[in-house]
Amino acid sequence: MTAHARFSINQQTVKQLPLPELVETCADLGVRNVGLWREPVRAYGLEASAALVRDAGLTVTTLCRGGFLTASEPGARKAALADNRRAIDEAAALGTRVLVLVSGGLPDGERDLRAARERVADALAELAPYAGRSGIRLAIEPLHPMFASDRCVVSTLAQALDLAERFPAEQVGVCVDTYHVWWDDQAPAALDRAGAGGRIATFQLADWITPLPAGVLNGRGQLGDGAIDLAWWRERADANGYDGPIEVELFNDELWAGDGRKLLATTAERFARYV
Amino acid sequence: MTAHARFSINQQTVKQLPLPELVETCADLGVRNVGLWREPVRAYGLEASAALVRDAGLTVTTLCRGGFLTASEPGARKAALADNRRAIDEAAALGTRVLVLVSGGLPDGERDLRAARERVADALAELAPYAGRSGIRLAIEPLHPMFASDRCVVSTLAQALDLAERFPAEQVGVCVDTYHVWWDDQAPAALDRAGAGGRIATFQLADWITPLPAGVLNGRGQLGDGAIDLAWWRERADANGYDGPIEVELFNDELWAGDGRKLLATTAERFARYV
Repeated sequence: MTAHARFSINQQTVKQLPLPELVETCADLGVRNVGLWREPVRAYGLEASAALVRDAGLTVTTLCRGGFLTASEPGARKAALADNRRAIDEAAALGTRVLVLVSGGLPDGERDLRAARERVADALAELAPYAGRSGIRLAIEPLHPMFASDRCVVSTLAQALDLAERFPAEQVGVCVDTYHVWWDDQAPAALDRAGAGGRIATFQLADWITPLPAGVLNGRGQLGDGAIDLAWWRERADANGYDGPIEVELFNDELWAGDGRKLLATTAERFARYV
Repeated sequence: MTAHARFSINQQTVKQLPLPELVETCADLGVRNVGLWREPVRAYGLEASAALVRDAGLTVTTLCRGGFLTASEPGARKAALADNRRAIDEAAALGTRVLVLVSGGLPDGERDLRAARERVADALAELAPYAGRSGIRLAIEPLHPMFASDRCVVSTLAQALDLAERFPAEQVGVCVDTYHVWWDDQAPAALDRAGAGGRIATFQLADWITPLPAGVLNGRGQLGDGAIDLAWWRERADANGYDGPIEVELFNDELWAGDGRKLLATTAERFARYV
């Protein structure tokens, strides 16, 4: 088989596969695109990872992830900015154009979402020019509102755009992930706005399934298993001029417990059927 | 002690207390308001429950809950409408003015949130006049987006208002619960709109704590334990002319495992301190 040309496998979806096996399986299945994560890349070695994917002819669609920019304490804030500059450097070394940012949650004991969001904007003002000089675009990812307190104070696509639009489009865009935005009746209009402004930096897919597991992080559904009309969202993104790769990013303990090669094959098949 | 005059204890918060004990504890603590649930009321007997709270001088602030109006299958839809008429009758018998409605999720295998929301509107068109004739106001409750697929396709206060405003304000309002709306940067403006239109039918409180438990239903935080600035929301509701009772509705397995009388006392104290 040959996977769809726009299909990209996010490394975290098949995190049971070491990077060389992931690259090998992509070759076997005709998968041309991969989204990488900083932690496994660092474990394998940044230069070694870059060489491995480059030699295999794979396109690195994104690096996940920077962000966590909501600290109010000066030391923590400085450390976060430094870490994000490193993430930008790593993205450049891997040959991708896109660094996905998860903004961070409320610091312990704080209750002011608006102030936390403004701190994200302040941090972007420092990082965006640096990213621009490295040819990297920051992709602000709104996460589902169930993560608002502990992971990401940016909860809707409209909020992500409000942030991104303060900066040049070539420096800051948004990451649209169906898992996080599917419930939002304002998200289609926000997607149109993102398209019109050239702000769709990357487009990711996961399906919504219930019941959610404890902690709610690792319950994302395989494509077609859940409540989201994935083809509808893909068509809307297409209609807005997005013709780039489409990453499948599943965090799912049950899927991770199985065979990674089979999972990648299944995911590519589901992509062809449901997207 | 005497609890705050606007404090109302939702029966589900202290579900370990049988109704007579709940009423007795309210008398001990000077709690004047209670929100009831259909299932325990039915278990104790509708007329007996009504007499018990009436004789104790308690105000019944709401009955929870009607709704679940998203079925597309005609038989299921008819049954849901009949059940909601019974809920309206029960609310009238209990002497409350407000029936809280949770709209229902996506039927199995369906993926069209918009169509499901329209079926809620269609059902309201049948129920609102019936409620009006009984002196009952339907309160559409938006639930947190993490419940969009399996429990409530109405995910934001703005959506709830969009539905409510199709009907007379004395027949249909909204239920504002901090737990469900706190993350939403559009919710304050929606609360203003609800106030201006006389649509705030009831105001409920719970705090947001993480990690969420499996299934995410029973992880609501005691007032002051979480990320929500409860006083800010109460003040915003007040500023919009809402001067009615404020219900505390916690679903929490850990709190339910403890002593119900102590829990009620603690909840009243937390209300005084944080709201």
